[in-house]
Formats: sequence, C-alpha cells, structure tokens
Amino acid sequence: MPYRPGRHFLQVPGPTNIPERVLRAMSRPTYDHRSAEFMGFAAGLSSDLKKIFRSSGPVYVYSGSGTGAWEAALSNTLSPGDGVLMAETGHFATLWSQMATRLGLVVDFIPGDWRRGADPAQIEDRLRADKAHKIKAVCIVHNETSTGAVTPIKAVRKAIDAANHLALFFVDSISSLGSMEYRHDDWGVDVTIGCSQKGLMVPPGLGLNAVGVKALAASKTAKLPRYFWDWGLMTPSTEGNYPQTPSINLLFGLRAAVDMLLEEGLDNTIARHARLAEATRAAVQAWGLDIQCAVPEHRSNSVTAVVVPQGIDADALRKIALEQFDMALGTGLGKVKGRLFRIAHMGDTNDLTQAGALCGVEMTLPLAGIKPKASGVAAALKVLASKAQPGAQQAAAE
Amino acid sequence: MPYRPGRHFLQVPGPTNIPERVLRAMSRPTYDHRSAEFMGFAAGLSSDLKKIFRSSGPVYVYSGSGTGAWEAALSNTLSPGDGVLMAETGHFATLWSQMATRLGLVVDFIPGDWRRGADPAQIEDRLRADKAHKIKAVCIVHNETSTGAVTPIKAVRKAIDAANHLALFFVDSISSLGSMEYRHDDWGVDVTIGCSQKGLMVPPGLGLNAVGVKALAASKTAKLPRYFWDWGLMTPSTEGNYPQTPSINLLFGLRAAVDMLLEEGLDNTIARHARLAEATRAAVQAWGLDIQCAVPEHRSNSVTAVVVPQGIDADALRKIALEQFDMALGTGLGKVKGRLFRIAHMGDTNDLTQAGALCGVEMTLPLAGIKPKASGVAAALKVLASKAQPGAQQAAAE
Amino acid sequence: MPYRPGRHFLQVPGPTNIPERVLRAMSRPTYDHRSAEFMGFAAGLSSDLKKIFRSSGPVYVYSGSGTGAWEAALSNTLSPGDGVLMAETGHFATLWSQMATRLGLVVDFIPGDWRRGADPAQIEDRLRADKAHKIKAVCIVHNETSTGAVTPIKAVRKAIDAANHLALFFVDSISSLGSMEYRHDDWGVDVTIGCSQKGLMVPPGLGLNAVGVKALAASKTAKLPRYFWDWGLMTPSTEGNYPQTPSINLLFGLRAAVDMLLEEGLDNTIARHARLAEATRAAVQAWGLDIQCAVPEHRSNSVTAVVVPQGIDADALRKIALEQFDMALGTGLGKVKGRLFRIAHMGDTNDLTQAGALCGVEMTLPLAGIKPKASGVAAALKVLASKAQPGAQQAAAE
Amino acid sequence: MPYRPGRHFLQVPGPTNIPERVLRAMSRPTYDHRSAEFMGFAAGLSSDLKKIFRSSGPVYVYSGSGTGAWEAALSNTLSPGDGVLMAETGHFATLWSQMATRLGLVVDFIPGDWRRGADPAQIEDRLRADKAHKIKAVCIVHNETSTGAVTPIKAVRKAIDAANHLALFFVDSISSLGSMEYRHDDWGVDVTIGCSQKGLMVPPGLGLNAVGVKALAASKTAKLPRYFWDWGLMTPSTEGNYPQTPSINLLFGLRAAVDMLLEEGLDNTIARHARLAEATRAAVQAWGLDIQCAVPEHRSNSVTAVVVPQGIDADALRKIALEQFDMALGTGLGKVKGRLFRIAHMGDTNDLTQAGALCGVEMTLPLAGIKPKASGVAAALKVLASKAQPGAQQAAAE
Repeated sequence: MPYRPGRHFLQVPGPTNIPERVLRAMSRPTYDHRSAEFMGFAAGLSSDLKKIFRSSGPVYVYSGSGTGAWEAALSNTLSPGDGVLMAETGHFATLWSQMATRLGLVVDFIPGDWRRGADPAQIEDRLRADKAHKIKAVCIVHNETSTGAVTPIKAVRKAIDAANHLALFFVDSISSLGSMEYRHDDWGVDVTIGCSQKGLMVPPGLGLNAVGVKALAASKTAKLPRYFWDWGLMTPSTEGNYPQTPSINLLFGLRAAVDMLLEEGLDNTIARHARLAEATRAAVQAWGLDIQCAVPEHRSNSVTAVVVPQGIDADALRKIALEQFDMALGTGLGKVKGRLFRIAHMGDTNDLTQAGALCGVEMTLPLAGIKPKASGVAAALKVLASKAQPGAQQAAAE
Repeated sequence: MPYRPGRHFLQVPGPTNIPERVLRAMSRPTYDHRSAEFMGFAAGLSSDLKKIFRSSGPVYVYSGSGTGAWEAALSNTLSPGDGVLMAETGHFATLWSQMATRLGLVVDFIPGDWRRGADPAQIEDRLRADKAHKIKAVCIVHNETSTGAVTPIKAVRKAIDAANHLALFFVDSISSLGSMEYRHDDWGVDVTIGCSQKGLMVPPGLGLNAVGVKALAASKTAKLPRYFWDWGLMTPSTEGNYPQTPSINLLFGLRAAVDMLLEEGLDNTIARHARLAEATRAAVQAWGLDIQCAVPEHRSNSVTAVVVPQGIDADALRKIALEQFDMALGTGLGKVKGRLFRIAHMGDTNDLTQAGALCGVEMTLPLAGIKPKASGVAAALKVLASKAQPGAQQAAAE
Repeated sequence: MPYRPGRHFLQVPGPTNIPERVLRAMSRPTYDHRSAEFMGFAAGLSSDLKKIFRSSGPVYVYSGSGTGAWEAALSNTLSPGDGVLMAETGHFATLWSQMATRLGLVVDFIPGDWRRGADPAQIEDRLRADKAHKIKAVCIVHNETSTGAVTPIKAVRKAIDAANHLALFFVDSISSLGSMEYRHDDWGVDVTIGCSQKGLMVPPGLGLNAVGVKALAASKTAKLPRYFWDWGLMTPSTEGNYPQTPSINLLFGLRAAVDMLLEEGLDNTIARHARLAEATRAAVQAWGLDIQCAVPEHRSNSVTAVVVPQGIDADALRKIALEQFDMALGTGLGKVKGRLFRIAHMGDTNDLTQAGALCGVEMTLPLAGIKPKASGVAAALKVLASKAQPGAQQAAAE
Repeated sequence: MPYRPGRHFLQVPGPTNIPERVLRAMSRPTYDHRSAEFMGFAAGLSSDLKKIFRSSGPVYVYSGSGTGAWEAALSNTLSPGDGVLMAETGHFATLWSQMATRLGLVVDFIPGDWRRGADPAQIEDRLRADKAHKIKAVCIVHNETSTGAVTPIKAVRKAIDAANHLALFFVDSISSLGSMEYRHDDWGVDVTIGCSQKGLMVPPGLGLNAVGVKALAASKTAKLPRYFWDWGLMTPSTEGNYPQTPSINLLFGLRAAVDMLLEEGLDNTIARHARLAEATRAAVQAWGLDIQCAVPEHRSNSVTAVVVPQGIDADALRKIALEQFDMALGTGLGKVKGRLFRIAHMGDTNDLTQAGALCGVEMTLPLAGIKPKASGVAAALKVLASKAQPGAQQAAAE
C-alpha cells in the first residue's frame, strides 16, 4: 500500500484503534503456553478481567470472536428446543436470533424499529405469559452496535424478576464493555458476552464469556452439543491452563489493554466515553441530522449512528470520507444499509482525535450533497471545552 | 520477567518460534475489515493459502485453533449418529475422537500403541466390513504431534478406494502443514485441518479448513447444529468478505509467513525439515535413547519424541533444560506423560538453531541422570555437514 | 507512564510524528554492516537520498544531529580564521554562528529581528564590501524553526552571484527538507545540512550533508581539524561502506521514510504541507493572534509561530495544552521564550490530524486567558474543504 | 530480502544481537525531548549509566559512535600540540592514534605485534622518560576488538602512578563495557569511551563518555576546537536536558538494555561472558587453531580471534559460514585481513546460542579446507556442562 500521510482515522465501531502499547505487547515472541511462566501470566490476566466485567465469576477467553462467544453462551446452557426471548434492537440482535434458530432453539423475537433499546415492559409481559417456562434464556444486546441504541440492562433484570421467571439472562456487552458502565454481578447477568476489538482496544480474535453460578449450573445439564466452546474444558484456563493453545500474542495485547484501563480507572474511562459521545451528538444535532437512536436516554456512548437525508447514499458519503480524509466511518448494516453512517467514539480516543474525526465529517457532508445547518465541530468543541478542567489530567498522569 | 540473556530456545512442537518478520507484520495497526483494501488483502491471502495446502478448493480461516478446525470439519459435514472411523495414533487422535463422541457421532476408534502411524490395511478392513455404510468419515492425524509418528495419507486414500467406500476423508495436518509434504488434492483429502502456530510460524489463534467439493456437497445436508463454524457463512471470506470480524493482525502475520514459505519454496522448506529431522534422530540414536515412533518410515520430520530410560522422569529433565539452558522441550501428553520429551524441528529453524538445541539436550541428559552413549551433537553435525553444499544457499538468497 | 487515552498530538517542530511504518522498519534486527547485503542496502539508500535533496552529489549520513551536520559543513571546508557570513533569522541561526566562532571562524552576523527571513540584498552588500574575500562561506538557515520564517535561497544565490563572490554557500534545510521545496543543485548550494527528525519523519540521530563539487574541492585544503566528520572518510559510505558502524536501525527507518516520500511524490508532499500551513495560518488569523513571521511570503509551510498577547505566558499555555489535551506545542526559544508558541505542520500529517491539533489550540486559548476573536477551526476547515477534490486521493492510492 | 529460515547467527563483535525487548522499546513513538516526562526519563537513564561504568561522575551520551566518543575525549581535554601516549594493540588503537594525529596532537605510539595487550612497564618507561611532561594523556584500548586482546587497565594506572606522571588516562571500553569487568572510578580512569552496539546490546548510534573530575578540570583550558562534542554543552544532559535533539528512540533502547543488565546483575553478566569465552577458546584449541592473542591472561571474554592456517583465506571461510549456515563471523581488520576471523561472545548470548555458533564454525572449517584436530564443540560443551548447576538460573529468574 503506498504511503498515505498522517494518521488514518479509524472511526468504525470496531475494530477500534489499537494503542501502540498493545501492538508492542503483542510483538513479544510467542512462548510455551504450558510453562509455569505463561500459566502465571494467564491466571493473572483471568483474574483482572473480572474487574472489567465487574464480575466475581470466571471469565473464559476464547480464540474466536463475539459471535463465537454468543454461541458459547447458548450452547453451554441450553438444550435443543429450548425457548429464548430476544429483542430486535438492530442487526446484531437479529444475527443472534438467527444463530439461536440455527442451533435448534425456539426464538421469541420481540420486534423492534431499530431506533431504540429493548423495552423491559415487553420483556416482562412475555415472561409473565410464559406460564410453561418454555423460555430458558433472555438474550439482550446491551449496546446495539448497528444503531447506537442502549438497552437498560438493570431494568431488564428487574423485569425478569418482576415476572418471577427463572430464565437465564444473557447480555451481549460487545460494544459497551470498557466503554460504558457495565456490571455483571450487580445487574444479575448470568452470561456476559464480550470480544477484544471494541472498548478493550485489542485486535479482533478473542471472544469472552463472563459466567455466573446459575449459568454454570445450567451447563451441567445442557444438551446442545459442544466441544470447542465447552466451559468445562475451559475451566482450568482461569488458572492459566488452557485446554488448547490459546491466542498467546492476543493475550499479551489484552494484558496491556487491561492494564491501561485499570491505570485510567474504569470510571474515568466511562466518563471519557460519555464526554466524547456528548460532543459527537452535539455535532450531529448542529449539522441538523437525525440520530438513528430516537430515544435520547438510549443513545450510546460508544457509537453514534447518523441518518442521512432522503436521496443521499450513506455509503457514497463514507467513500468520500475515506478517499478525501483517510477516515473510515461505519456502514449501515442490514436493513439500514445506505441510510446511515456510524461515528465511533470508542476505545483509545481523546478530545482531539474525536475533534479531528468530527472535522472530517463536517468537511465530508457538503461533498456528499448535505448542507450542514451549522458547525457541528463548534458545537462539539463547546461541549469538550466546557468540561476541561485545569489540572485534572495532570493529576491523573501523576 | 527479569532478563534472561540470549535467545530462548523454543523447542516445543507448537507454538513454534515466530519469525520477527511475522511479529513485525502483526504490529501494523488494525483497520477496517470492511474496506476494499482489506478485502483485497484477504482475498489474495486466501488464494495463496491454497498453494500451501496444494488444494484447488477454498481454504477457510477461522479465529480459533486446530481444535476448532476439527469441529468445523465434523459439524459441517455430518449428522447426529453418523459413524466416523478414527485411529488411535496418540493424544491428539484421542482428543479428536472424544470431540466426535461429544458432538453425537459414533466413533469406531482403531486402537494403537502410540508408536506408529495408522495402518491403512486396518482402515481398509473396517471399511470393507461396514456394509451398511454407517461410517461417513475417516479421520486421520497426518503427523501425530504427541508421538512424532506419521500416517501415510496417500496409502489411506488408497485403502478407502480399495474398499470402495464413500466415506469422506478428513486429515489433521496441524503439525505437518508447511513442514512435511502434504497434498490435499493429489491425496484425495476432503477436508484438511490446519492451524497457525506450527509450520506456518504464526502465533496461535487461527484454525484452517481446506475443503474439497465432496465435503462442500455434504455440508448442504449435514444436520449437526453449527453457526460460528458454518462453511456457508465463511464462503464469502475467500473473496475477503468475512462474516464476522476476522483476526486481522494474525492474518497480517499469516500473510508474511505465506510469503516466506513461498520465497523459500515449499519443496525447499520440506527438504530443510527432513534434513533437520534426520540430524535430530541421529543425535537421539547416538545418545542411545529410544525414539517413540518405532517404525522408521513413520518418523516425523517436524518433531521427534524421545523415550527416557526407566526410572527417569521426562518432565524433571525438561525442567532442567528450561532452568539451565533456557530451552523449552515438549512434554509427554496423556498416557506417555513423564515417559518422553519432544524435540521440535519445525517452522523457523535452521542448522545452527537446531544444533544449539541438540547441544542443550546433550548437556541436560547427564544432569537428569542419563548417561549418553556417545555424542549426539557430533552425529547430528555429521548429518548436517554431509549435506552442506557450497553455493546452495547463496543461490537461494539471490 | 500511566495510560493516556487516544493519540498524543506531537505538534512540536521536530521531532515530528514518526509513522508506524518507520518504527516497524527500525525494529528489524540489526545485522553486520560489513556484509554485502548491508552495503547494497546502504548504497541504494544513499542514491535515493539525492532525490530528496534534488542533488547530484554525494549525501553523507552521520550518526549525529543537525548540529553535527552544521559542524561537518564548516570543519570540512574552512580553515581557522576564515570569515563566514551569517544572518540572524532566529535561535538556530544564532547557535550556528556561536558554533562557527567556537571553531575559530570569524563570523559576520547580519542582525535581524527574528520576524523574517534573511535579506538577499544585505547579503549582496556585505559580499560586495568584502574586497579581500575574507568571507569564505555564506551560511543561511532556509526555514528558521524557531520563528517559522523562510529565507528565499534562490535569491540569496543570485545575490552571491551578483556580488561576484566566490564564497561557498551553505544552507540549513533541517526543517524544510521533505516539507518545502528545496533544490540543492538548481539553487547552487554547496552544502545542504539536514537531519532525520523533521520532514524526514525518522527519529532523531542522523545528520546529513549534501555536498557539491565546489565544497568537495574546498575540503582538500581546509585546515580545521576533523576526523569523525571528515568527508574523506565518509566517501565510501555512498557505496554502502561506512568508516564506522553506522546507525543501522535509524537507516532502516530512513529507508522506509524515503520510500514513503517517493511514493507520495515529493511535489505532492510539498503541496500537502502548503495546504496544511495555509489552514493553520487561517486559524491563527481568525483567532486574532499575530504570526511571528511578519512577512507573509516568508511564512513557513512546516511550522507556524504564534505570538501571545502581552501578559500571557506562552509556556503556561503550552502546559495547559499538554495537560488538558495531550498536545505538545513548541516553545519559544532564546529571546522569544514565553512570547510565542509553535504549531508544527510538518512530516506525517494530514487534514484531520492538523484539524484536531487546531481544535486543541482553540480550546486551550480561553483556558490560558486568551479570548479568540473567531473560530480558527472554522477558518481552517474552510481552507481545507475548498481544496478537497473528489477522486484526488483515491487516484494517489492506486 | 527473501526468507532465510531460522535465526541469523550474528557473531561479529559488534553490532551484537539486539534483544527483542530493546527493539520493542525503541519502537515506542518518539515524543518531545523538551517535555518534563522526557527529561525525567533521560535523567534517570543518565544516573543508571554510572552503574554500568562504575563511575561516580557524569556520563555523556552522544548521537554518534565509539569513534565520536574518542574524539570527544581528546577534543575536550587537550590542546593542539599536546603529546599523547598510545599503544599499538591492534586496528582500533591504530585508528585512534590516526585520529589524534589528525586533530593536531603528537602521538607517541608504542609499537605492538597485535597479539597481546599493552605493556604497563613500557608505558611506565615512556612516562618516566617524559621529563618535560609533554605527554598529556595516556590512551589505551581496554579490549582490542580487532584481536581479542585485553590490556590490564588497573596495571596501567599503577604504571602511570609509579612514574609520578600527571597525564590523563583515557580508556576505550567499547567492547568490554557490559561484558567484562570495568571500573572507571576504582581504576583511576579519567575518561572512559563506550558505545551502544557491543555489550550494551543497543543498535549503533550512541557514543558515550564517562568523565572524571580531573578530565572535567582539563576541559576548562583545553584549546582543541569543539562544539558538537563539547562537554560543557552536554552538562545539562545529565539532568535530562540535551543541548540538541538526542537520539530519543536509541535512548529508549538503552534504557531497556541497562534495565536488563541490572536485572541480570553486572557481576553475573561478566561471569556469563567469561564462561562463554572459556568454552569458545576450548573449542578453538580442540580444533588445533591458534588464538590471535598469544598471552593467555590477555585473552578477551567478549571476542576470540582465530588465526587460520597458512594458505587459507579467512574471508573465504567467513563467506562459507554466511552462505551455508547464515552465520556472520568477524573479519580480520587492517594488517591481519584474511589471516584471522573473529567469533564474538558478547552481549545477548547464552550457552545454546554460543554452542550453535561453534557448531557452525565446526562445520565450516572442513568446507574451507581446514581439518579440525578434534571436536571443538565437544570441548566447549564440556566447559559449559561443567559449570551448569541445577537451580542456579532458576534462582536468578525468581
């Protein structure tokens, strides 16, 4: 590839920018995963991952992907013919429901308009109606990456409890983990699904399951066939002893990334994402464009999906951004293809990288045939500047 | 980890030494896997991988492992209750049979003593006896990593044909691919299973399936549930369009490794492994130790398993090698634990790295209570020197 | 150092942002600089460096710095007591004159106000007045990094010629090379001084001399003592044969950087710098701040020095930018310390990185007590957007 | 360069193998050398470098080379016409004397046969004879890299003292520092010269001066012209404040290397070099070849120069080693060109890398027309094995 000057702006909502510290960590020579040294390393990492999920139970790290981690959650806990309740929040929720069907589960898929999170009240209703307890699991996407809409997980938990239903509760935290508040234990989640290439700032290749006691118990009797994803085989991995050769170098990268999140402080990380998200939304609104997520309190702090006006092709706009400004924006997936583009504000970002990205969008809009109503960059800077406090980051750096 | 001077000698049979060129390739920043640039890259890599398998069909690259690639082969082609014929060549063949059982297949497992490859005649007999054609697949490990024993794949193909049996033929080429001769098409293999961290010289994290037309046809009707491993979903990946976010940085590494193998020339790579294996075996025989693989023509060119005398603990020996000489040797797996250690001669190796490793073993033996009969290093150098030809490598370097 | 999220904005005028491709090139293992392989590599690099200087003569690459390259130019060509004519364009011109004095040369230092380039007319006058031809060299800084002021080198050459003076002509191109138009041969320069860490995008550690025939001739009789910097010893280096062990890994980086500049096309690189400089100056003017270089046509395309209002400490402002926005701005050097800060637009930059930097300055100004008159970012984006042409960069990428 | 399998054996006596930890440290992005962060980093490094030299005085780190560091020592302390006493121990001592002459000093060069260290008695005699104290400095190469001969520095100091001479004492520790015992303070050295690419395991590009109080005092009145190398300008660098932009990324590498040496413990490092040197010499003697250094107690622990039999061209032998075994051996320099080759055992080495190198030489000898008397590898392994103590390295690793 010939030289393109300056930094590529990778603004798709995953894979996100990998910090060079993570890349350097990954370039350490691979060594024997059966050595005491590696096992000590892996056990320590396993332990620290719990802090990221805010979970007291085991976290299994697969060579795989978020999709694989979905499959692990389902196949370890369910049996053929089991019912699962899912909510159509967007493209990824739809894919997950397709997977469940393919695996032989019976999906009750609450329809949605892809413009908001799932509705706890609807979930409660379905569960109450399920007198026969055919529904064995409720599966929700916390942050729907395709639309930038968040489902309030705590409220879903309350809904399940209110319905007095015994279903397991599985949450896809793929694009919220390490970016937005997420509490596996406190929110009563049974399996949380994650992956490496979003807020965790590691290249793709790892799928994660944080698993609670109720889910572990279910895995003893679950009859879906499984081997690669089997939690039983993975159990010793929390002590560093993997059943297969793990993705050693990606684990080196994950170690660095977890260190970085803990150095920043997870609450600071979450606040940073909130701040950058607010600035981004302010820009979109100043430009006079619609945000795909119609419910303000459901708007994601890791990605904002922007609806383009009728007659405009969002992918043509994305092409201009890439060619003119070396910036990759996220495409519309599934039924919103061409109708929206996505601006990530996730992972290894800060005020100026996000401001640079918004400058890129602002310059792209007219080239794509969209006349912005006002300067989105000015609106974003106003948000960012209003929160800059002398000494704050200095303190953090000390 | 505090500094240990000099190069670590990683002599386990996978993960193997990752060339720094591969590590550097992997440290390139991750970027959008939906970009035209990435798709062009991935399509090119997919195409070149066929050369490594010597296959004309698609090669699917999973975020996963060799184990995952086993599961992909089985779950894409078979249905619950199908019979599979397997041969107990060692630990990995045993694990594979366990997986098949767990997935709901009926395994006919030809017993073995872990000291030789599978016997084509036995396979032919079993197939002939299977009048009802309950056996839907013959699953063989080409190079049993746990014992260093090779099964002659071409002869197994002949046996299947001689039995006039329609079973599919699956071969685990995990520790032979890129090290020993392997011909997917010519040998009539339906699915070849590979992974990244052996002869391909890439860190672990990728599982590979080279798939023939007969296997693809079988996948249309196979009923084992699958999603993550589904070939149908993977089909566009050969054009660079992955169904999920692939392990981008590991693919960067794989690209570099495939380039390197093609630069060396696969036949040269194979000859190099044969030469280093011969030297290693000469050393073991000079020391007066047994090679686990009792059949000379079955002895592996990628790893040699060395039996320790009665009363010696092979793992205690390995510990001395690691502590005294910073060299990791492979452990005995499963039922040969403590009875043997393994010396890899696989991947990114040459005369002097292998000679250094053998020097390390030679110095370790007495410390572990084994008195060598003669110098294995001298025997190995004799082999290596006898094949050094002035100008040969110079030509290759030009 | 604890994690600071996102990309550090390194906006000092050297060292500039090192592209990761250069860093990766540098991480290749060091090898024998006396090998045929290295000598071929180094000879090729030497040859390509001429294209960067637009010089037909040798380019000597020292382990050193720009300061060292100054010393090499002087000590190879001059004798104790020789006169040199220099012009006080700023801090670096002043340092160079101090060096000349320390080396035993007699400096005629044309005074300046640090707000413009040197004046060719004054140079012509001094040379005409030098009837005895005591002045043996005219030494000019092309782009004064401390002030962002450019001296028109072609015009100085004309002035020397107009004065019919035989003095050698030395030009410091440290912060213009690879960023702004520079023509060693066409402009009749005898020695051009460069270094690695500015427009060449390589970490600091290399000093460069592009040497013309007249200078080489002078070196035969020059009497200043020298050894390390001696061109005679360096002559074989242009064939790859260095007199001492060269900075091998920095040369690996330089190779990558030269490749990148040639891929972009030097004229495109220069146009890019002009564009980013124009945007930056538009921002400064919109903010209502003074540009240190008072002569518009002397304003640098690689760095802009911004004067802060009376009562404001430019270094306090820089501290805020670093702490609040993780952006390093250049300090005022020498007599302008505290009176200005510098924004680099040099090396591996593009529209969005520069826009992000200007966003950072815009948010910093009020925190430092400066109320901007208008949005500099808006002014800069207007410049950048006016020049974006669909398809332009796409073509470059193909 | 096309792929060459396995590890390159870099056995030249500098540049030595750069540990990947150093290379990774160097691949960190360059940042502002005027920042508080960098200055803290550089001050800490400066302080730790004293431990390597075992010096209480400042250590100046130049972008340059060992040659540059020689020039710094001479030019900072001496005046034109000053006498210096040097001893012809080999090629590098000869080059240093040429430099001194070129700089205007008057060299008294004690002749030598390149087969031993300098003779303290001769030095004492010369100094005693120098009634007029024309000799201002005694300049000795501790470990003559071209011949592998060591001069006993402590004894030279005694000789100077015995002669009651006030000359300064300069020692080139380029290929002994970090490999062999060296004590700047205890041995009464005034300036120690070092560089990065030998025992310090960093790529070339740095020259070092450890400076004592007597030398600093001399620098106040020394009249040799200097600027780049001037200690006065370098003084603030010990506080992290460099007069010019330093080689930031090489300093990152040096930081890692110093950490590694201190982790190993300098005494352990020295013992390791002694052990590997002894093994190498045992191999040479078993082969029946001459060691260039004729005095056993002068034999270097960082490099062994091996004399080839009459009629053999050492460089032809080196070419075979490179082509056949991908091993770079050191050439004969100056008047011993073609008569010897050099095997380094310096820097990042251990038992097995050195054993591998010796295997390479053993296989090369017959190809080059030399019939070894006996196995040098067997002799070397005997030395190495005799010193292996179970638990020893384990303890170090804890």
